[in-house]
Amino acid sequence: MSGARAAAEGADLLVTGIGELATPLGAEARRGQAMRDIATVPDAAILVLGGEIVYAGPAAGLAPAAAALGLGEGGLAALPSLEAGGRAVVPGFVDSHSHFVFAGHRADEFLWRAGGLGYMEIHRRGGGIRRSVEATRAASLERLVELGEKRLWTMLSLGVTTVEGKSGYGLDKETELRQLEAMGVLAGRVPVEIVPTYLGPHSVPPEFEGRPGAYVDYVITEVLPAIRPLAPGESLSPSGETGAPAARFCDVFCEKGVFELADSRRYLEAARARGFGLKLHADEIESLGGAGLAAELGATSADHLLKASRPDLERMAAAGVVATCLPLTAFTLRERYAEARAMIESGCALALASDLNPGSCYSQSIPLVFALAVLYMGLSVAEALTALTLNGAAALGLADRIGSLEPGKAGDLVVLDAPSASFLPYHVGMNLAAAVVKRGEIVYRA
Amino acid sequence: MSGARAAAEGADLLVTGIGELATPLGAEARRGQAMRDIATVPDAAILVLGGEIVYAGPAAGLAPAAAALGLGEGGLAALPSLEAGGRAVVPGFVDSHSHFVFAGHRADEFLWRAGGLGYMEIHRRGGGIRRSVEATRAASLERLVELGEKRLWTMLSLGVTTVEGKSGYGLDKETELRQLEAMGVLAGRVPVEIVPTYLGPHSVPPEFEGRPGAYVDYVITEVLPAIRPLAPGESLSPSGETGAPAARFCDVFCEKGVFELADSRRYLEAARARGFGLKLHADEIESLGGAGLAAELGATSADHLLKASRPDLERMAAAGVVATCLPLTAFTLRERYAEARAMIESGCALALASDLNPGSCYSQSIPLVFALAVLYMGLSVAEALTALTLNGAAALGLADRIGSLEPGKAGDLVVLDAPSASFLPYHVGMNLAAAVVKRGEIVYRA
Repeated sequence: MSGARAAAEGADLLVTGIGELATPLGAEARRGQAMRDIATVPDAAILVLGGEIVYAGPAAGLAPAAAALGLGEGGLAALPSLEAGGRAVVPGFVDSHSHFVFAGHRADEFLWRAGGLGYMEIHRRGGGIRRSVEATRAASLERLVELGEKRLWTMLSLGVTTVEGKSGYGLDKETELRQLEAMGVLAGRVPVEIVPTYLGPHSVPPEFEGRPGAYVDYVITEVLPAIRPLAPGESLSPSGETGAPAARFCDVFCEKGVFELADSRRYLEAARARGFGLKLHADEIESLGGAGLAAELGATSADHLLKASRPDLERMAAAGVVATCLPLTAFTLRERYAEARAMIESGCALALASDLNPGSCYSQSIPLVFALAVLYMGLSVAEALTALTLNGAAALGLADRIGSLEPGKAGDLVVLDAPSASFLPYHVGMNLAAAVVKRGEIVYRA
Repeated sequence: MSGARAAAEGADLLVTGIGELATPLGAEARRGQAMRDIATVPDAAILVLGGEIVYAGPAAGLAPAAAALGLGEGGLAALPSLEAGGRAVVPGFVDSHSHFVFAGHRADEFLWRAGGLGYMEIHRRGGGIRRSVEATRAASLERLVELGEKRLWTMLSLGVTTVEGKSGYGLDKETELRQLEAMGVLAGRVPVEIVPTYLGPHSVPPEFEGRPGAYVDYVITEVLPAIRPLAPGESLSPSGETGAPAARFCDVFCEKGVFELADSRRYLEAARARGFGLKLHADEIESLGGAGLAAELGATSADHLLKASRPDLERMAAAGVVATCLPLTAFTLRERYAEARAMIESGCALALASDLNPGSCYSQSIPLVFALAVLYMGLSVAEALTALTLNGAAALGLADRIGSLEPGKAGDLVVLDAPSASFLPYHVGMNLAAAVVKRGEIVYRA
């Protein structure tokens, strides 16, 4: 049985000697000021049975809770166990925005930009997303799986137990479906839960240059019907069967001069009608109103949001759209960071994610996300932790199942090589994952 | 035989399949514009015999070079080998400024500062270096060794093969000597080469509050005589014997209101007379003239330098003092970065280091140093690589022995999990060390 399948089927695990259990609580996103309220329990224990948490709390409460479940002292002692040795335990991280299936790299373009070249000059030199599109179109399914697998194991070693993955480097039907298919294969290979997103309208492909509307027509009529919509709460099956390409969400790069509001709306409405959840790359470069559109359509999340207006943020808050910030991208592009505090003050549920991609942000560094969030975006440790766990889960529609350490949730957790969750930002840029558990299965040890 | 001793004695190793060998060249620091000239050899091989490089260059040149050394094809085939599989190889990183021996942590203080508290308020709440001093004074030799060992293995996993370590968290004679002794023990435990530095004048201890001059007297008359000066080019012996506390360098925190120029000069002159090399924490907070003092006294390096004046930088260049920048500290303190380009334009040899310490910079992240250097300090990949290898070696007086991949240098190298050294900044914040070699011994594999 593969590690992925074992983790998916769920295992028993007793985690003892937890110096600090730090977790948000609840079955939905924490919004606004509520993001700062996390549970911090010293001297704690967690009991996972069949992949699901049945107890998480003070060590002293473990035996009575187990007894109530019919597990005596002998029963507890017989379970597989993990001794945390006084270290902190937090929920597995949920990376709710990533592009981990792509071929080719753009290191040269990174260096051109670092050296001060502007967007147009980089484009003239052959940089930009079209290079990733060419490389991904040229890559076989096998090659995409190989590349994606390596990236997923790296993410897992950083404590990520659930990851969203976007297509969007094929643009044409064949390659987009191949990217989604690669995620299906990967779900059977790596014990990270994968939530796939179709991002055909990531860029206007060369075949449709200057005709975004015609490309959106193509997407709606040719591509969407070929993708099986996963149900809300569903992620890819780790059975290893490679069935039809599937996606839970449809996403669009909604920006001036790319896919503007009318095309974005048309596409998203078509996707919603087919049963997909909605996501938007919104208001990253210009204040176009993508955040407002996300609210209007009831999207699950709107992402980037560097230029989102305050009224649109308030609409998102009212509509329950998760606001996803991607600080590694801002860091890499030397942009200012998204106004996370304004989002929280607007009552939004804030999520943080990596945005791993070959162009604007070649990084999966969860540790750097924590450092940037606390040092440069004004978040507290509790807010940053909530944003990378429960609110990340909410950004994938999974908050009732993952994202916190409490009975009824999946046994997805990270033992930190530190006495407290406050070390996540304090030990700047350093990976603290000492052990990673997916549904009760120990899937990584440092 | 311990890994440390094996590495120190030197092993044979043939490294094949190198997709890109990237290294500065030379037996001394690369200064100014020369920092950008590195060798980049595709399809390369490296041959290490007895810990020392005898060949580094195109794979096609290996057999003739080996034959000239009396090693036929069979001889080569019999050597221990490492297949790089098309990946890039760079010199082992030299972290020339760190404080890796300390007890206690200051995560709360980090968060107070992140939350906007000023220096004085943090001090009032009990923050600051004095907390690290209390914790380190209270720690046994055994405990300091245990803490330091863990940090060194982490550094090694990031590709660091030589590290400088400072005392300075005891301030009193007993604890300072214990910190140096801990480094002596560690040299026998971890296969990282350790260069110890005495930093008694790191802060004025409570016993001498308001009397920095009296403390410097104490340091000169009581402490310096108890420390064995290592000779130029000497590092700690990995024999595991714990002899007298030894140091190669003496360092001082030369700042307004702490140790000003007169006290710093007096201390450094006394240290030099005893045979120690000199280092300074200079012009970090105010433009006091520490950089100029470093030039005047012929120090090996001056470090931090955020406020160093252009004339002082030029004096440093003329005197051959290495300018060491510590971008992780600026990142953590949200300060502007040191003016690396001005230093290079002044003709200085620039080194980059971690500054790992429990207060202003709890990080060993070499990957983040690369990202900050290229994205936020205007360095090219070649300059950043030179700064973290050959110029780091020069900052420890070891440039004739380590810091580059060429015949006569130690076989200290890192196989990167990437096709090119340009991925060091491009894969933002991610550790690329796939294998680390110290004097021909493979000491770490990811």
